[in-house]
Amino acid sequence: MEDVKEPSKSALKKAEKQAKFDKAKLEKKAKQLPIVGAASKGAASSKTSDIIGITASKEHDFPQWYQEVVLKSELIEYYTEISGFFILRPASMYIWNVIRKWFQAKIEELGVEEASFPMFLSAKSLEKEKDHVEGFAPELAWVTKAGDKDLEVPVAVRPTSEAVMYPYYSKWIRSHRDLPLRLNQWNSVVRWEAKQTTPFLRAREFLWQEGHTAHLTEELAGEEVLQILEFYAGVYEELLAVPVVRGKKTEAEKFAGGYYTTTVEGYIPSNGRGIQGATSHCLGQNFSKMFDITVEDPAEKGKHINVWQNSWGLSTRVIGVMVMIHGDDKGLVLPPRISKIQAIFIPVGLTAKMTAEEKAAHLKRVDELYETLKKAGVRSDIDTREGYTPAWKFNDWELKGVPLRIEFGPKDASNEVISYARRDTGEKGTIPISQMTTEVPALLEKIQADMYNKAEAAFRAHRIKITQWEDVTPALDAKNVVIIPSCLQIACEDKIKELTTGRADESTDTPEAAKAPSMGMKSLCIPFEQPEGLVKGETKCLNPECQNLAESWCMYGRSY
Amino acid sequence: MEDVKEPSKSALKKAEKQAKFDKAKLEKKAKQLPIVGAASKGAASSKTSDIIGITASKEHDFPQWYQEVVLKSELIEYYTEISGFFILRPASMYIWNVIRKWFQAKIEELGVEEASFPMFLSAKSLEKEKDHVEGFAPELAWVTKAGDKDLEVPVAVRPTSEAVMYPYYSKWIRSHRDLPLRLNQWNSVVRWEAKQTTPFLRAREFLWQEGHTAHLTEELAGEEVLQILEFYAGVYEELLAVPVVRGKKTEAEKFAGGYYTTTVEGYIPSNGRGIQGATSHCLGQNFSKMFDITVEDPAEKGKHINVWQNSWGLSTRVIGVMVMIHGDDKGLVLPPRISKIQAIFIPVGLTAKMTAEEKAAHLKRVDELYETLKKAGVRSDIDTREGYTPAWKFNDWELKGVPLRIEFGPKDASNEVISYARRDTGEKGTIPISQMTTEVPALLEKIQADMYNKAEAAFRAHRIKITQWEDVTPALDAKNVVIIPSCLQIACEDKIKELTTGRADESTDTPEAAKAPSMGMKSLCIPFEQPEGLVKGETKCLNPECQNLAESWCMYGRSY
Repeated sequence: MEDVKEPSKSALKKAEKQAKFDKAKLEKKAKQLPIVGAASKGAASSKTSDIIGITASKEHDFPQWYQEVVLKSELIEYYTEISGFFILRPASMYIWNVIRKWFQAKIEELGVEEASFPMFLSAKSLEKEKDHVEGFAPELAWVTKAGDKDLEVPVAVRPTSEAVMYPYYSKWIRSHRDLPLRLNQWNSVVRWEAKQTTPFLRAREFLWQEGHTAHLTEELAGEEVLQILEFYAGVYEELLAVPVVRGKKTEAEKFAGGYYTTTVEGYIPSNGRGIQGATSHCLGQNFSKMFDITVEDPAEKGKHINVWQNSWGLSTRVIGVMVMIHGDDKGLVLPPRISKIQAIFIPVGLTAKMTAEEKAAHLKRVDELYETLKKAGVRSDIDTREGYTPAWKFNDWELKGVPLRIEFGPKDASNEVISYARRDTGEKGTIPISQMTTEVPALLEKIQADMYNKAEAAFRAHRIKITQWEDVTPALDAKNVVIIPSCLQIACEDKIKELTTGRADESTDTPEAAKAPSMGMKSLCIPFEQPEGLVKGETKCLNPECQNLAESWCMYGRSY
Repeated sequence: MEDVKEPSKSALKKAEKQAKFDKAKLEKKAKQLPIVGAASKGAASSKTSDIIGITASKEHDFPQWYQEVVLKSELIEYYTEISGFFILRPASMYIWNVIRKWFQAKIEELGVEEASFPMFLSAKSLEKEKDHVEGFAPELAWVTKAGDKDLEVPVAVRPTSEAVMYPYYSKWIRSHRDLPLRLNQWNSVVRWEAKQTTPFLRAREFLWQEGHTAHLTEELAGEEVLQILEFYAGVYEELLAVPVVRGKKTEAEKFAGGYYTTTVEGYIPSNGRGIQGATSHCLGQNFSKMFDITVEDPAEKGKHINVWQNSWGLSTRVIGVMVMIHGDDKGLVLPPRISKIQAIFIPVGLTAKMTAEEKAAHLKRVDELYETLKKAGVRSDIDTREGYTPAWKFNDWELKGVPLRIEFGPKDASNEVISYARRDTGEKGTIPISQMTTEVPALLEKIQADMYNKAEAAFRAHRIKITQWEDVTPALDAKNVVIIPSCLQIACEDKIKELTTGRADESTDTPEAAKAPSMGMKSLCIPFEQPEGLVKGETKCLNPECQNLAESWCMYGRSY
């Protein structure tokens, strides 16, 4: 397992060294400084290293940029003790909890209940569904010892809980009256990836929710699959301001052991890659046959039918997609709806000429404004840290992605306005204090909408319908995903991947850069919204080495 | 590990057999029955086995009673795949989520933020604090393989996260300005117990929250320890209607590697045992020294001080304590504040003489009442299942612990009242429909208060101050916990345990029964509220083989 490439290792080492250097330097500096007040010295010593900000450019070194942003905005800490694991810091957990509450309310309305199953899985249960075990076996973490004793039978940490839960579905479902059975759990799962890990996007342990439901008919199961998929789209579009394409996975890409998989697919403009957003699977009757989950057919006495099952999951990956899409060279850019702090007040213009009383009066005024906005339901905070310039504070809150900065100086006070700066566009303006409690919420909603629209336009512009094979690679190289006529066959898809895989470019010195240009494309989904122009029985599959007719338009791309 | 005694095994087998038998019998029966409508037949077939209800008596076979209650009320399912693990079903998760929301709001107010650390722990980190590793090593689950490859360095599943988190506290805390650092996570931990497991009370994996905080001074840390302890007491007293005694653990019973441990201790009247409710630890500077968590002293330039740390945790054990205290021979009894359904409407008095129209009109009326109460904020439901008698439904909802049953028949309708039955006391009465939306909430609050007061009286009556050694064992045998003058020394406590351990009674045939009477007592806590009568420097430690003077009153008991 130790062959895992951690692209972040060198960057991480550098960052850690820098931090240690800063700490040492600052401590040294602190000792040399005249004592100007213990409090402000302490503050400076703890914070100066953050001034460094993001050093990598999103455009020119996207992987490095991403690592710096998630680290420096304090979303993530690398768990250096064990490779491939990450710590989610409060800034991440806030976002995840907003998503959790939103999604939880939606599924509760559907009648989904919460449960908690053990994290361990017996090999016996896992092996019941052949494709399923094959799909997950290479990534299973095995507990073989407890204390200093070997376990008689090793147990695996769940990579997903189908095989944990379904023996009990068999026990609990004894009549069609027990259907639908819909359970969800919020937990973490472990997939000991051999591939390189990336914060949020691919980690060996990640937080998610996993819903597992059983229905009487294929139709009822299918209806729920799409309801849930729409909620997943809602998490991206309504909360994270991230556009997605809804569709179905091809046979090659569907869930191991399932019947069909629906998905929401995102797009990262910076490198033109597609990224799977979240998946809602219809498992069909595969698992119910293996786990013996049957009811008597209410329409035909004595006839037993296997239930129809779904499983669906959304993980903390969503946060990574959001960061990649909205962030910029100053750091994180958070959509207002998921930002813990939506508006940060920063007192400005406190000059040396002002008396202590004047300063205190001004600060009191800012504090009142902040309290007013907070009471109006805007998640606000005020930065009154001493020993920092306003400019330093601006940088700090920009790095952390706060959507709206509100500056308030003596000049603003005399004009009875607040001055603001939008994090997403940098646009500045003023709002009369008298209209603050309505204008600020409206502005935050505008920021949310603008962020979505910008990302949506970028995705739309880079989702290109292609009908000539020779256009494919140039389109990918121009950071597009492509929509092509496809026969949807597994062998054809394998071939397409092979045909589009370029030679590794050995001239660059980072593995990421060397790999990206040579990556083959794979199918992302069969979009539910099919473009015009494909004639069934006539249009050929685009793959030049495939003789089949096209079944539908399929979205392909280089991908995460 | 296979020497673990699972007291529930035989009972479980029996229950499973019974279930299979029921299923087979019912299926057979279903085939013989005349078709009276597929729906009602299906319902009967799925539910009849539940009628069996609780077969064991709480008074005469408490362990068996407990197992039946948690299983049949659908709080728990035994995870038969791997011994010592349990499935928390929706009825449990509802309760846990009420507690979670309540506690989360309290700690957010204190400024505690949420984080999520990996579930795995490197041996290197764990070994940093000697007592800590010794305390947990025997129960660690070790992952040694991923896929089919051996890990170069095995990793343990966290039994608690001190050693996971504190390397990062060292990194993040760089100045006293970074203090207090307060993080909490909601997760599950694994302690591969060799002792017998019991649903909720002792499981090899359990859900909990673990808070980990760092402070500048002992005083600030100590203040938080008590704030959190009071929240824990609140979970028991305000939500679960369970009285607790607040106190400090003795040296023998404190957290491994900590400085001191505070605790809320509960009491199970049925067997007279004490049970640890939840603990809030001051870790002192032990961990900060081992993990190098220091700041410069704001009061003295150049002087580095180790931070003062706390950790505190509350687990799903709370649910088990609540079940044991309030349940009865009919099943679960839930305090209204944590019950998903607070009032269940059951239409009654629908006789064969009534016309279909009359029945429909009556059912419509009940439905309106239920909707009215629901809108008034009472968590209500209505049981209109066909094919069941009202008596069967009464039993079913009693088994599940719903606090208030509301019956409504034609007679109630003509009197403009609803009839109710309290789950806790069985008391019946009527409420005018016109006053329903105020009287029912008031009644629910009364039930909550009565349940607490009853349990509190029982605990108070069985917490006995003892000053003669020869009174100890009779008091324990009479299902009391005792409060005795103690020197608080570890060796003395060991001796007391030894002296109070009786011979195993081999005449009974269940391990539980054989063990209970012979169990020695251990210290539960040094109550914060100390009784009168102990004179420092005069009063002797009660242990007849101890020569020390008493330090304080200490609560001892047979315990979980």
